[in-house]
Amino acid sequence: MAFRMTEMVGCEFPLFAFSHCRDVVAAASRAGGFGVLGAVSYTPEQLEQELRWIDDHVDGKPYGVDVLIPEVQAVDKKISADDIIAMIPSQYRDFTRQILREAGMAEDIADPQGGSQSPNTSLGQELLEVSFNHPVRLIANALGTAPPEMIAAGKKHGIPVAALVGAKEHAMKQIDAGVDIIVAQGGEGGGHCGEVSTIVLIPEVLQAIEEAGSDIPVLAAGGIMNGRQMAGMMAMGAAGAWCGSVWLASPEAETTEVFREKMVAATSRDTIRSKYRTGKYSRQLRSAWHAMWEDAGLAALPMPLMSLLSEPVLRALDKASVNGNPKAQELSSYWVGQGVGLVREIRGTGAIVQDFKEEFAAGFETLAANFD
Amino acid sequence: MAFRMTEMVGCEFPLFAFSHCRDVVAAASRAGGFGVLGAVSYTPEQLEQELRWIDDHVDGKPYGVDVLIPEVQAVDKKISADDIIAMIPSQYRDFTRQILREAGMAEDIADPQGGSQSPNTSLGQELLEVSFNHPVRLIANALGTAPPEMIAAGKKHGIPVAALVGAKEHAMKQIDAGVDIIVAQGGEGGGHCGEVSTIVLIPEVLQAIEEAGSDIPVLAAGGIMNGRQMAGMMAMGAAGAWCGSVWLASPEAETTEVFREKMVAATSRDTIRSKYRTGKYSRQLRSAWHAMWEDAGLAALPMPLMSLLSEPVLRALDKASVNGNPKAQELSSYWVGQGVGLVREIRGTGAIVQDFKEEFAAGFETLAANFD
Repeated sequence: MAFRMTEMVGCEFPLFAFSHCRDVVAAASRAGGFGVLGAVSYTPEQLEQELRWIDDHVDGKPYGVDVLIPEVQAVDKKISADDIIAMIPSQYRDFTRQILREAGMAEDIADPQGGSQSPNTSLGQELLEVSFNHPVRLIANALGTAPPEMIAAGKKHGIPVAALVGAKEHAMKQIDAGVDIIVAQGGEGGGHCGEVSTIVLIPEVLQAIEEAGSDIPVLAAGGIMNGRQMAGMMAMGAAGAWCGSVWLASPEAETTEVFREKMVAATSRDTIRSKYRTGKYSRQLRSAWHAMWEDAGLAALPMPLMSLLSEPVLRALDKASVNGNPKAQELSSYWVGQGVGLVREIRGTGAIVQDFKEEFAAGFETLAANFD
Repeated sequence: MAFRMTEMVGCEFPLFAFSHCRDVVAAASRAGGFGVLGAVSYTPEQLEQELRWIDDHVDGKPYGVDVLIPEVQAVDKKISADDIIAMIPSQYRDFTRQILREAGMAEDIADPQGGSQSPNTSLGQELLEVSFNHPVRLIANALGTAPPEMIAAGKKHGIPVAALVGAKEHAMKQIDAGVDIIVAQGGEGGGHCGEVSTIVLIPEVLQAIEEAGSDIPVLAAGGIMNGRQMAGMMAMGAAGAWCGSVWLASPEAETTEVFREKMVAATSRDTIRSKYRTGKYSRQLRSAWHAMWEDAGLAALPMPLMSLLSEPVLRALDKASVNGNPKAQELSSYWVGQGVGLVREIRGTGAIVQDFKEEFAAGFETLAANFD
């Protein structure tokens, strides 16, 4: 098989595996896909360590890094984490303590952690520099327009820069900014997402690119969990598939066993597009967490306050859920797209890539049969 | 080319054209697709007239009828239209009169029309009987589970019965009820719709059908506006495409010129899933109509009250919009899916079918190129 993405980033099969977990990244690349490490929560030192691990485990196969440099933050970059945490209203802290108390857990187990450093200082140029000291083949920016310094760094190192978009208008901005690859993610996808569905977004973005006289490749994202869907998107003109949710049901992922079992049990109607995790709309598995916030009648805090408050609580709940706490199991949630309804079993990352390849061929055969 | 749908309903190309307009139905079938007349608003006499017209204009090509027999109605079938209209609260009537007054129109021009007959008496068995007196090749039911009398009538006449669903669970109910074809419509589609996107819904329904030991065909609906998308859906295992919105931008449709121009100008983000037309969530082109209702703070009335109130007003506004009333043009709306963002020009129905065929082949070629 011959793919445009093979030329651009060196992968055998244009299946991009976005993950916060180095194990998934390395396993996806080893199997012929292309792992992309979501590095948003790392310090430069941590990222250096993760990438060194990947280099040691990827068998020389290509991989990429997503560094997430947001255009706009609700808080000034110069203020410290302590200052930011002080902005969280006390009733919100009281409420998360109440959630933990009701789950039979120590109510101060997950108070937001401060520090004199800004939570933003680790973002940006430093992470990029760390990445370029490794054999990365792609830099991605998952939120907002890729900043000029990222584009410039990509050009300097000869590494393509990809940007995630959820609407045609955003794609056109990214192209004007000079990115090399568009990842167009439909609203059915997990994490931060818009409202336009994948099947409409892909042709709409491709049409706009063509009308602008460009031929920049578009990767399809949002709802893609198997190789038949990938084949379908490529019949529409996509250059490959960018997937996140599908890896979460594999043992290599950062998810808990409890969450993976929830994925197997879920249907496509069990997700929710909610602000009650990061402060912006992001698609997650619906759980008692969302119901409790809605019932409390508290509006979500803006980014990054909501994450600073909620992430430690959700991580504590994850830990308790694995230890058999039934209330924590009810509350357990994570980002996932509607495609969760297609998860039937827990599979290793390499097996998922292999299944995609076979389903991709099967999708082509199914379509070809109409032309006999 | 060889398609399963050719055997089942006799069409050359498995592109189903749902329309409330006989002109679209006949033109789509003549061009090799399969027109389906949405007969919900007809009396048996009117339906007889429409089907006779289609028979005279379809050149012997196959077509179908959608008779929409809802399982549940908010009102008793025995009460008259006058009785139902009396249930509309006066503040709602005052508000639609205000909308018309502000558009410079006579405020009583569109008061809901009553009568001693129930608005439901024309539904159901009578419409089915009229349909079977014509060479229809498909009966479809667009809302709720197909009732036993519809399944029985289909079997008796040897005509397949199709049912529209928006979720896997509904598909399984329909199969248990005995339908022959599932039309699975994603939430990006126009009209009444669920929330699961097409790209997830199609494989989820196909998976459930397979696990149930059935091989009933599934038509993909929701967001499909061109033959590349159709090819993509068929690579995923769909037996064809069921489209509604794409025909609304053709001169044969019941839409106004004003609305068709709005379609060309719209992006995929210009639709809204709103109760402010029928009382149930249905996807429509967002216009000043929705903003005015939201601003008024009036909750949508239940079905069928909301339609009885809003449809005459919207039709009066359509008429005024064509006559150049700028306020009516702002208010003008109709059911349409997110695929409206892909409409670039006004094309005849036959040309759309022809374009689909070419794009379908192009989509296959694009996918095939990866296997060189």
